Amino acid sequence: MSNTPASTQNQFDNKAQAWSARFSEPVSDLVKRYTASVFFDKRLAPYDIQGSLAHADMLAAVGVISTQDLQDIQRGMTQILSEIEAGQFEWLLDLEDVHLNIEKRLVELVGDAGKRLHTGRSRNDQVATDIRLWLRAEIDVLIGLLGELRHALATTALQHTDTILPGFTHLQVAQPVTFGHHLLAYAEMFGRDAERLQDCRRRVNRLPLGAAALAGTSYPIDRERVARTLGFEEVCRNSLDAVSDRDFAIEFCAAAALVMTHISRLSEELVLWMSPRVGFITLADRFCTGSSIMPQKKNPDVPELARGKVGRVNGHLMALLTLMKGQPLAYNKDNQEDKEGLFDSVDTLRDTLTIFVDMVPGISVKPEAMRAAALQGYATATDLADYLVKRGTPFRDAHEVVALAVRECEQRGCDLADLSLDELRAFHPAIESDVHAVLTLEGSVAARKHIGGTAPERVRFEAKRILELHGKG
Amino acid sequence: MSNTPASTQNQFDNKAQAWSARFSEPVSDLVKRYTASVFFDKRLAPYDIQGSLAHADMLAAVGVISTQDLQDIQRGMTQILSEIEAGQFEWLLDLEDVHLNIEKRLVELVGDAGKRLHTGRSRNDQVATDIRLWLRAEIDVLIGLLGELRHALATTALQHTDTILPGFTHLQVAQPVTFGHHLLAYAEMFGRDAERLQDCRRRVNRLPLGAAALAGTSYPIDRERVARTLGFEEVCRNSLDAVSDRDFAIEFCAAAALVMTHISRLSEELVLWMSPRVGFITLADRFCTGSSIMPQKKNPDVPELARGKVGRVNGHLMALLTLMKGQPLAYNKDNQEDKEGLFDSVDTLRDTLTIFVDMVPGISVKPEAMRAAALQGYATATDLADYLVKRGTPFRDAHEVVALAVRECEQRGCDLADLSLDELRAFHPAIESDVHAVLTLEGSVAARKHIGGTAPERVRFEAKRILELHGKG
Amino acid sequence: MSNTPASTQNQFDNKAQAWSARFSEPVSDLVKRYTASVFFDKRLAPYDIQGSLAHADMLAAVGVISTQDLQDIQRGMTQILSEIEAGQFEWLLDLEDVHLNIEKRLVELVGDAGKRLHTGRSRNDQVATDIRLWLRAEIDVLIGLLGELRHALATTALQHTDTILPGFTHLQVAQPVTFGHHLLAYAEMFGRDAERLQDCRRRVNRLPLGAAALAGTSYPIDRERVARTLGFEEVCRNSLDAVSDRDFAIEFCAAAALVMTHISRLSEELVLWMSPRVGFITLADRFCTGSSIMPQKKNPDVPELARGKVGRVNGHLMALLTLMKGQPLAYNKDNQEDKEGLFDSVDTLRDTLTIFVDMVPGISVKPEAMRAAALQGYATATDLADYLVKRGTPFRDAHEVVALAVRECEQRGCDLADLSLDELRAFHPAIESDVHAVLTLEGSVAARKHIGGTAPERVRFEAKRILELHGKG
Amino acid sequence: MSNTPASTQNQFDNKAQAWSARFSEPVSDLVKRYTASVFFDKRLAPYDIQGSLAHADMLAAVGVISTQDLQDIQRGMTQILSEIEAGQFEWLLDLEDVHLNIEKRLVELVGDAGKRLHTGRSRNDQVATDIRLWLRAEIDVLIGLLGELRHALATTALQHTDTILPGFTHLQVAQPVTFGHHLLAYAEMFGRDAERLQDCRRRVNRLPLGAAALAGTSYPIDRERVARTLGFEEVCRNSLDAVSDRDFAIEFCAAAALVMTHISRLSEELVLWMSPRVGFITLADRFCTGSSIMPQKKNPDVPELARGKVGRVNGHLMALLTLMKGQPLAYNKDNQEDKEGLFDSVDTLRDTLTIFVDMVPGISVKPEAMRAAALQGYATATDLADYLVKRGTPFRDAHEVVALAVRECEQRGCDLADLSLDELRAFHPAIESDVHAVLTLEGSVAARKHIGGTAPERVRFEAKRILELHGKG
Repeated sequence: MSNTPASTQNQFDNKAQAWSARFSEPVSDLVKRYTASVFFDKRLAPYDIQGSLAHADMLAAVGVISTQDLQDIQRGMTQILSEIEAGQFEWLLDLEDVHLNIEKRLVELVGDAGKRLHTGRSRNDQVATDIRLWLRAEIDVLIGLLGELRHALATTALQHTDTILPGFTHLQVAQPVTFGHHLLAYAEMFGRDAERLQDCRRRVNRLPLGAAALAGTSYPIDRERVARTLGFEEVCRNSLDAVSDRDFAIEFCAAAALVMTHISRLSEELVLWMSPRVGFITLADRFCTGSSIMPQKKNPDVPELARGKVGRVNGHLMALLTLMKGQPLAYNKDNQEDKEGLFDSVDTLRDTLTIFVDMVPGISVKPEAMRAAALQGYATATDLADYLVKRGTPFRDAHEVVALAVRECEQRGCDLADLSLDELRAFHPAIESDVHAVLTLEGSVAARKHIGGTAPERVRFEAKRILELHGKG
Repeated sequence: MSNTPASTQNQFDNKAQAWSARFSEPVSDLVKRYTASVFFDKRLAPYDIQGSLAHADMLAAVGVISTQDLQDIQRGMTQILSEIEAGQFEWLLDLEDVHLNIEKRLVELVGDAGKRLHTGRSRNDQVATDIRLWLRAEIDVLIGLLGELRHALATTALQHTDTILPGFTHLQVAQPVTFGHHLLAYAEMFGRDAERLQDCRRRVNRLPLGAAALAGTSYPIDRERVARTLGFEEVCRNSLDAVSDRDFAIEFCAAAALVMTHISRLSEELVLWMSPRVGFITLADRFCTGSSIMPQKKNPDVPELARGKVGRVNGHLMALLTLMKGQPLAYNKDNQEDKEGLFDSVDTLRDTLTIFVDMVPGISVKPEAMRAAALQGYATATDLADYLVKRGTPFRDAHEVVALAVRECEQRGCDLADLSLDELRAFHPAIESDVHAVLTLEGSVAARKHIGGTAPERVRFEAKRILELHGKG
Repeated sequence: MSNTPASTQNQFDNKAQAWSARFSEPVSDLVKRYTASVFFDKRLAPYDIQGSLAHADMLAAVGVISTQDLQDIQRGMTQILSEIEAGQFEWLLDLEDVHLNIEKRLVELVGDAGKRLHTGRSRNDQVATDIRLWLRAEIDVLIGLLGELRHALATTALQHTDTILPGFTHLQVAQPVTFGHHLLAYAEMFGRDAERLQDCRRRVNRLPLGAAALAGTSYPIDRERVARTLGFEEVCRNSLDAVSDRDFAIEFCAAAALVMTHISRLSEELVLWMSPRVGFITLADRFCTGSSIMPQKKNPDVPELARGKVGRVNGHLMALLTLMKGQPLAYNKDNQEDKEGLFDSVDTLRDTLTIFVDMVPGISVKPEAMRAAALQGYATATDLADYLVKRGTPFRDAHEVVALAVRECEQRGCDLADLSLDELRAFHPAIESDVHAVLTLEGSVAARKHIGGTAPERVRFEAKRILELHGKG
Repeated sequence: MSNTPASTQNQFDNKAQAWSARFSEPVSDLVKRYTASVFFDKRLAPYDIQGSLAHADMLAAVGVISTQDLQDIQRGMTQILSEIEAGQFEWLLDLEDVHLNIEKRLVELVGDAGKRLHTGRSRNDQVATDIRLWLRAEIDVLIGLLGELRHALATTALQHTDTILPGFTHLQVAQPVTFGHHLLAYAEMFGRDAERLQDCRRRVNRLPLGAAALAGTSYPIDRERVARTLGFEEVCRNSLDAVSDRDFAIEFCAAAALVMTHISRLSEELVLWMSPRVGFITLADRFCTGSSIMPQKKNPDVPELARGKVGRVNGHLMALLTLMKGQPLAYNKDNQEDKEGLFDSVDTLRDTLTIFVDMVPGISVKPEAMRAAALQGYATATDLADYLVKRGTPFRDAHEVVALAVRECEQRGCDLADLSLDELRAFHPAIESDVHAVLTLEGSVAARKHIGGTAPERVRFEAKRILELHGKG
């Protein structure tokens, strides 16, 4: 039985009139809306409840609340969660945020036990816990999607281990490569992206709860128990740091910006490859749209939009860095601004990766267009230089010999392979009848079979390695 | 009477099945959601309609559509606008964006006239027109708010032309200044912000309509008529540029970032001034909130949150710059990403400025705390140096003399004014009995009466000048 | 005659030992290097001297220093300037920055007059004045370069008013445009960039000198005289604002970021056009380099590097915005960080624009490749739809008819113009024998002759207009 | 013996005339300067030589060059390295970059062996290797400095485990904390920064060499041998990815931005604490400077400048992200822009951390000022609420009771501890004579002894833990 005097006044009973008994006027409607976060932080509700239950469980275990209180809280939270899932929960702007909305409803449902839940914690450590729980779950989803995308890239790569296209540097034809090899370059990038998210996850997965407002609490709390309950690997070791820093969120945004940067590069290539002058691929219709005015158009909207979305994620990263700059300890209201950018970054990655997992298998390759392009631009000039080196010419001299031969071809409008043996020998006497073999595209790619090389056998090996890593049952 | 064959097929009749007759499969639900913009661009609806009406008026004037068509379109649009305002308009994801949603409804309402509206234009020039109309209106609102904020600052400044506080550099006491002077520094900043928006407005206020998809149109359109109807000052002189560049939006975001940067500086000071160790001001309760755990707290939430929001606006600027980087001509789907950041920047400025206009008059000044702070830190040391200079000592020598005197005071724990005339004369023989007058705070500020100086009479003049500029009836 | 006591101690005599008499230990070498700015701000020297001379002139005019002092200062500064220009000036790290280095030397050269120069000013208003003088001059150079670049673009455009290439949207063939029209799109962008710099210049061109450290000064200074001497249009009206804000520098960086964004777009197209699959142009050899390994390579290094340099300028913008966020009034040392990014932005623009002015005339156009590309991709499909509209079909129905025709052509591997009249009429009975005229590239572009359209006659008019604006004697 | 024809022409013999035999005109001087990197990439020279030696060793091992060639190369490189270290190496702009400068000199010194060094590699994989070797070494230095900084913080913290200051949230007094606890919050942040650098190092430490220009090479290279020689943990598994991606550099910049963000927060507090109204600390004179005009000033220049420098590092991050956006495979010249920002980020961190390692022990604490501040602002109000909760009042009710008591104190201008027992009991009957113990600062902090709490015993434990981790000898 409670010891409260008759005129029981709860902190939130008159919140619409004044913040607490200490305040003499209510905030204006615009200020309410300006400072409230409930319209975006309500997505944290399941994690807020999960955190509250772990906190209540610990409070009961150390004797700060009774077993009956714990059961009341558990019962109330079960109902609240189902109300939220059913869309029946009434979110109130007056109650500012997800935390107060849920707590107010809990007190309605279970009375004093609800008022005891906030013992030994603050919204400062509560929200830090919620975000970490939520972000940890999202990181796991994203790592899964990156694996699926790598699987999709490797699957298509395996179908094109022998499909030759020009490898470009500076968008000029450089050397022939295989399309499988080209796709696996992106599989490598997305692999590193997954590594980064995994590393970030370790720093996300630490428990701030127990830091209370900023200094810890005078109750005999058991933070390690709460960490175990919630699956956190570590406990944040300094309360001021725990409630105020958001470096884990910024680290995530930086990793997200790199994912989108890689997506933007792949998208640029898809758009380019689908341009009629290049014509290396087509994308399935379901990733394209038409024009309101030009009836013939089929536009690669999805990769274009994905390329554009790197802007938004870079922007969120810069927003969060700006936000944290120069903030004194401990919690400041500025930090409320951490959420929308973080949420949008996660959503952007999730949608984009999901679509790309579906889009990659929908790429139709036009091998003949790729081959034609590889034959234009002296792609095997380096092979000719290497041929000379292998016959004793120092590389720098061989390079110059071939440059002269290319110049001649350009003037005559032909390819190196079109020169006769005698014409080639005029550039260097070491050239013999076996030279034409090294000037073929197949010969060029097959020779690059070391780790990381573009040779079909190497690409086959790498694609299979990736498929095994991300294989599904 | 239309010449259409029996099996009349409109472009959008089967949009859920395929984009147009050219496409063989529909886009997936996720792709639809990913590429659609209707959920954020519907706020452009009134401007979309305004632009369509001006376009239709011109088409009728040059004879491309009939007067009856124009009347039908006008009638339809009137109804659509009222449906939208009443919240009864059904926005469909399948129709992608605000343009197709409105056009589809128009065709439902008025038939063939509706199908004729899109003659000689494209969504590319249409959306560019909508954004410019919308942004022009918002800029006017923001310039108005900046004027109101300057008025509020000048009003408070006029009440504090003689209130002295320490002017800080490096957060160290530098020289005494008047609080009115301090507030007017921000009035200057917001004045330049308004200038920038005004300059930006000139570049926003140019008509892209008529550029069609990218090359202009084969109809005998009259772009100058459309520009006049819509109040545009100029017509964009190159169609490729008109549909593809978004520099006007980026320029706006850069101006917005500066507004928020200035807000962040003012906010930093409000937070600092309200900190108990400083205690120069309090903010009205309605701009503060309390703590869920600490009963004594009254936190300056509004300036803190405003300070944080500079991050979001800087982020949008970076997002848009990233977006435009390296985009080939003409329109690419990437550009759809221009809107959300722009919208949010405008909303952030509008809300923040509106609240500050209300908050500035709610600042309670504590003159005695300001004065006490000004007396700590040798604020008039420069005046003593100037005193010596006026008696013939070169400035650099006078500076050194006073530095020695300050060092002595520090060791004795007293102020310069506490030294006796003899003690002062020990540092320099030119010091005489009139020296103590220059060591007072009032003497120091009153002496700085030139343009830009902190003297009460100067501040009074400047405050009145600003009040006149932004005075209301 | 000076009143200084025998043991004359100048503030800087012992700077290596301690900052002033108030300090008890010297800064460490690393701190000296960390906090010094002389190695980058020495480029401001001519403007620092110019500002000092105007200040001295005013001090003499109002009687704060004698005519003899003024002449001494003028003589000293003349010598210092020639020492600097001759590379004989000894810049000392111990003296921190350009201001103290010059002042110390002045005192060496002219004695007490030099020590009197700093009367009534501070390094805070001095550096703000220097940067503004420097930036104003640089803006004028940049505006000139933008005019030259527009001239170069218009010159080349005038040679290609009738050269047809495919206009792209989404890198898909959209409608035929003329190459002259395409180039003029960039002339428009650079024109707006020049407008922005001009607007920014007005805000740069205001005098901060007289604000002294932060509060103004007790001397009877005449700021309007100084402004006239230095060519400033206005005087900064608030001393605290004058020494602490850097919004003019941020505004410049934002305008610079847009210049580079436009450069990045043009560069992207140059790189793309020079890629062998596209092959629309070649760049002169002097803007390209080769490969250390591939003898055949000729890489468009200049546009690629220019495209990359947008990153650096965007970065500087973000750096300055971050820098100013939340800075309390008045001057803080953070502001020293404003210079390097600003200097590098100016240098980047100057070099890049200078090179582009030279590179644009070095573009070799391959009209046949452009034409071939325009014939691929149904570029005149919109013209066919417009043809039907002009014969009474509502646009949306016409669009659908043409989409069906394009689909048929795609399946048959032919162009719209390859269909016979009967085949075309099968899609719509209104098609008659005059249809083939609208399906030609020349017919398509010639029809778009309104303001902003791609028609040769319109491009000729616009090119001439720009040439006249930027014509050189 | 070489097989080269008489007219031996090396690729670089005429570089000043034309890039190679394929080119017909030289680049202009401005283009040379614009595209050259030697003036900043020469700092990579030792790593370039290290990489070349490992490459040559491998070429000899697999028989591509002779043992004599290897010895010649080793001899030449030894000389070159000592020339560089002695400042006698002549860096030529004409030779573009560090690689060609060194190679040219090698050929001068050892002839044909030097021309053979570039066999099987390209500048593309060479520069990627150089940067990784350099960055790996710098990361190790930075991790060391972060450890030293944590050691310095923990050392000072251990001296102040019992020094009480007000813990702030929203810059309002929240609850008392110990100064040691406050400092350890930063030790936690810098600890995570070191973790991030360690994670980044793993991705830096992979070998790109062997990727050649983009596709690998036709020589039988042994990349694992090279990796072992250079200490790389892994070999990059895709050649296109290896030469073109810079995600490792961006990841480093993001980690660097977080280091500087944490530095900016600590700096903000140092500046604030040194402001006379707060007066919690003073910094040693060697980290401060004075004013050119105000003789009394002692400004905390170092923390202010460090705070400003977060801008520059954030800017570099944004620059690199912008740079990589939308780059098609494989290497493009844009990537040359990766270096300056990366170099400057490393330099900024290195200097800043080195100075802070020295500055932290130079902080003089003023415990009495801290204590006075903690007694102002009802810092123990939460403890009173907790007291009531422990006597059976639900937390939310207790919060409201204390809010009323604080309001009363505010009106009377006293502290909670100043109220008599009877006065306190008027707010709640459960309050008894032991209440005053919980209202003391010492009682409040001592109670927070759980992991992460501010209690002296806990801080002592944590400080020692960190000292052990980073202890020296």
